[in-house]
Amino acid sequence: MGTESYTGKINRKLNKKLRIVEVAAGRQKADLVLKNAAYVNVFSNEICQGDIAVAEGLIVGMGRYEGEREVDVSGKIVLPGFIDAHIHLESAMVSPKEFAKAVLPHGTTTVITDPHEIANVMGTDGIEYMLQATEGLPVDVRFMLPSCVPATPMDESGAVLDYRTIDSFYDHPRVQGLAEMMNYPGVIGADPQVLEKIVAAQAHHKKIDGHAPGLLDNDLNAYIAAGVYSDHECYDPADAIAKLERGQFIMIREGTAAHNLEALLPLLTPQYAERCMFCCDDKHPSDLLEKGHIDYNIKEAIRLGVDPILAIKVACHHAARYFLLNNRGAIAPGYLADFVIIDNFQDFRIEKVYKKGTLMFDGREVADFPAPEVDPYLVKRSRDTFHVAHLTAQDFAEHRPRGIIGMVPGEIVTEDQGYSDHIDVEWDILKAAVVERHKNTRHIGIGYLQGYGLKSGAVATSVSHDSHNIIVVGTNEEDMAAAVNRVVENRGGIVVMDRGEVKAELALPIAGIMSDDTLENVNEALERAKEAAFALGVSRGIDPFMTLSFMALPVIPTLRLTTRGVIDVAKQQYI
Amino acid sequence: MGTESYTGKINRKLNKKLRIVEVAAGRQKADLVLKNAAYVNVFSNEICQGDIAVAEGLIVGMGRYEGEREVDVSGKIVLPGFIDAHIHLESAMVSPKEFAKAVLPHGTTTVITDPHEIANVMGTDGIEYMLQATEGLPVDVRFMLPSCVPATPMDESGAVLDYRTIDSFYDHPRVQGLAEMMNYPGVIGADPQVLEKIVAAQAHHKKIDGHAPGLLDNDLNAYIAAGVYSDHECYDPADAIAKLERGQFIMIREGTAAHNLEALLPLLTPQYAERCMFCCDDKHPSDLLEKGHIDYNIKEAIRLGVDPILAIKVACHHAARYFLLNNRGAIAPGYLADFVIIDNFQDFRIEKVYKKGTLMFDGREVADFPAPEVDPYLVKRSRDTFHVAHLTAQDFAEHRPRGIIGMVPGEIVTEDQGYSDHIDVEWDILKAAVVERHKNTRHIGIGYLQGYGLKSGAVATSVSHDSHNIIVVGTNEEDMAAAVNRVVENRGGIVVMDRGEVKAELALPIAGIMSDDTLENVNEALERAKEAAFALGVSRGIDPFMTLSFMALPVIPTLRLTTRGVIDVAKQQYI
Repeated sequence: MGTESYTGKINRKLNKKLRIVEVAAGRQKADLVLKNAAYVNVFSNEICQGDIAVAEGLIVGMGRYEGEREVDVSGKIVLPGFIDAHIHLESAMVSPKEFAKAVLPHGTTTVITDPHEIANVMGTDGIEYMLQATEGLPVDVRFMLPSCVPATPMDESGAVLDYRTIDSFYDHPRVQGLAEMMNYPGVIGADPQVLEKIVAAQAHHKKIDGHAPGLLDNDLNAYIAAGVYSDHECYDPADAIAKLERGQFIMIREGTAAHNLEALLPLLTPQYAERCMFCCDDKHPSDLLEKGHIDYNIKEAIRLGVDPILAIKVACHHAARYFLLNNRGAIAPGYLADFVIIDNFQDFRIEKVYKKGTLMFDGREVADFPAPEVDPYLVKRSRDTFHVAHLTAQDFAEHRPRGIIGMVPGEIVTEDQGYSDHIDVEWDILKAAVVERHKNTRHIGIGYLQGYGLKSGAVATSVSHDSHNIIVVGTNEEDMAAAVNRVVENRGGIVVMDRGEVKAELALPIAGIMSDDTLENVNEALERAKEAAFALGVSRGIDPFMTLSFMALPVIPTLRLTTRGVIDVAKQQYI
Repeated sequence: MGTESYTGKINRKLNKKLRIVEVAAGRQKADLVLKNAAYVNVFSNEICQGDIAVAEGLIVGMGRYEGEREVDVSGKIVLPGFIDAHIHLESAMVSPKEFAKAVLPHGTTTVITDPHEIANVMGTDGIEYMLQATEGLPVDVRFMLPSCVPATPMDESGAVLDYRTIDSFYDHPRVQGLAEMMNYPGVIGADPQVLEKIVAAQAHHKKIDGHAPGLLDNDLNAYIAAGVYSDHECYDPADAIAKLERGQFIMIREGTAAHNLEALLPLLTPQYAERCMFCCDDKHPSDLLEKGHIDYNIKEAIRLGVDPILAIKVACHHAARYFLLNNRGAIAPGYLADFVIIDNFQDFRIEKVYKKGTLMFDGREVADFPAPEVDPYLVKRSRDTFHVAHLTAQDFAEHRPRGIIGMVPGEIVTEDQGYSDHIDVEWDILKAAVVERHKNTRHIGIGYLQGYGLKSGAVATSVSHDSHNIIVVGTNEEDMAAAVNRVVENRGGIVVMDRGEVKAELALPIAGIMSDDTLENVNEALERAKEAAFALGVSRGIDPFMTLSFMALPVIPTLRLTTRGVIDVAKQQYI
């Protein structure tokens, strides 16, 4: 298709259009008709009745129709497919194909992803890998380009992306804009290198998503005036309304790490809901399997008293309009035949899911579909992201005093607990290290961690925000070295090591952050690894790997550990 | 700017952005601050309070600000500038500059125009003329490309526009899409030459406006499934809701010829209003001077009980979102500083109008601004659109029986009144003719007209939908020929002729449909011409020229007159 002439393209689309009009007008049979449907009409804000006719993957009409295939949906409710307005697909730790399989039963037919994690590892190759690995999936995956790689100047990531580096991606038909502009101090401070990313996105007529927890008043004005159109970090109504009334769209987030839905219920009312959509930001395997996806947001909203039709609009139509995906998020002529069929709003059991008129979930299983073909160079590149020499205990030896990062149960913020010059298991003072793994710099930042609870061995993971270096914590340097070496051998993932023996592990060979396996198998391996970590003493109140994965992110207070040592986040100084 | 590099463009925009952020953050003084404003917030659906700061023509923040210029607006209400979603600018019979001067005091800061009239005369030169003649005006003029030139195959227009002919205009930054697809039978009947126009507009990711009065059920589905996103022809709520619930946006029309606002009041409610906007379609000089523009729609809506904030949203925000003009239609950071300042919602007196932060109307007069420069070739071309040989009474002689078109007072539909073979002033049977004037074909269609009332002389006009040939009606062939010759001499316009003497006239030298003069002068000339026509006997119940201008449009029942004779519209046959 790449060499198709403009006339050829018009003629190809015209042929499809002729068929659509013939079917819509009732002169030809539809490909599929959902007979006797009750469906949510997001335009008239009510439940409408009628047959829904489909041709060429599109809805062509509602009323009375005949089809080659007819499915009686009497007594059910037909909804437009759901849209996740902001997710890092990598958070599910599986390939995009496996992700699609996992979310289809939950009614998701479109997600907008920010490939921020893989871009921190592989740069533009990471973005291209994700674009190719999502091409033609039965969940439409749209992209926002990572705006902050690396996340901070203190990070040693696999790539540095300025506006020119990502610019050509705006021409890709599935790229909708620039992803969450986390560097809000840079925006407000008028940093030219930050602002030119926004300017370039605007020059391409693209959307720019925000990320600015708690920003207020003139600083918020500056952030929005710069060209940031949405926010998904709102945690209370005052914060959200301050943004909404200045024109930002609010993505109400309910994911694995953050739960904002209940706090933001006042937004799910006629006064504000038009400017709201749902997102999950990140979704870990167990959460996806146990709670679901955007359907969970809807169910929760309805359970908490939100009008079901309004909740459905927030779950599909508003995101479609925001992202200018004007052919979805509604049941109407010309829209994609993406349907979710449920029993009723209270039980909200998803009985069938259609993508572009094809039944993808029949209530029991997901229909098979091929994995998108990815350029062999990119496949090879994605499996070869660790460049770290073999490590020994000596590499973790350090006798100078180093800061102690105090973990806070149930939180990702940390406390400054002074310093130490040795491991003290009795006082729960463990050694921690971040090993640079992209460019074989041999940079190893060392510090101490309190509150993790490990009594023996070491835990290492290459899922480590946002640069995805290897973070390791241990009771002794031998196991720390062994754990890191094992992560590298596995080309990424999680390892629980004790006395030189692998107690449990999960390999994540795609860029060190995603598995090739199914979501179920990844979840099982992850649960086994968690149990192994708990068995070695890790406190049951914390997630042994997720908590660890935030310890290297030098934007969250108070202390963090980078490849260059322990940093005081507020002062932006190494201690 | 045409040869600016991409990097140059980004740097230029970056410099502007840096200033915007500095001002928004409060580190630099704003260009303008509206102090102590109460303004309509279209996002939170309420009146908000605060200073509104402006820099670089954009709103940068609301709150507390200082400015180089400060204007206290205590006690007033600040609104976003109004948008007319669909207008044929030519209907005001003045140049675009004069049009802008006329609508600014009414708060209009953006109009979406369909240059259908001039395109029927000058083809793509007409579109280009209007684009150039609107460049940089203080009313932002956006374009929808004419979809139906000629309006029907029976028309002899100045040009024939297929999809390829107009295609390159989609690249123009002020072209938003394809204008009203009046040929709905062609769409529903799957005429490839009609559908490919829609396909091409979609390929450019553009909007497609509709025009389909009373279409229902599967035909309506077919029309919408084809890709038509709006309608401005709705005349009752059932018609409008049928379209709205299938996904079309409804442009509620209140113009000179059609008055749909009152009938469509049920749409101006929370259930439906999100999908509605205002338009006037056409606006004649006297109407513009006496009633106003979109402000009239708002005032009427409020008078009839519509919530003022909702009416304001319909008048600006909804059109902006529909046309993807995402930097206007709201008062928020990053939006154009287009303001309308009124005293209160009941009196709705417009006290000031700002365009991009510049005061354009101070309550008394409109600030001066330059006329856009138009390519001399196009200027010359626009003044040279009549190609008709000198006519004599003999050209209108005709002794075979011809159909009698019966005018209906207050309507533009006509009745079939049989036939005649001679003028009979006593029985009000006048001779009428349509003279082809674009290509000197010497085609003159002759018929009879009943109900016009003329007792002596002839009336001719080159404003004659949609082909703008010259239509003439008279009590004798000598005056008919003289009137047409005079129209041609004037390069277009309206002439009232009696016994070889010009009783009154209005020259419209721009394409035969627009004047170079001011709106006030055009209106005065038009009123004088009307009086002259009435003095010659034309019934006072009809508009002597507007009614005549629809007599040549072979899409409105029952009989019409074309350059080839009288046509039965329903049968599409000459009689």
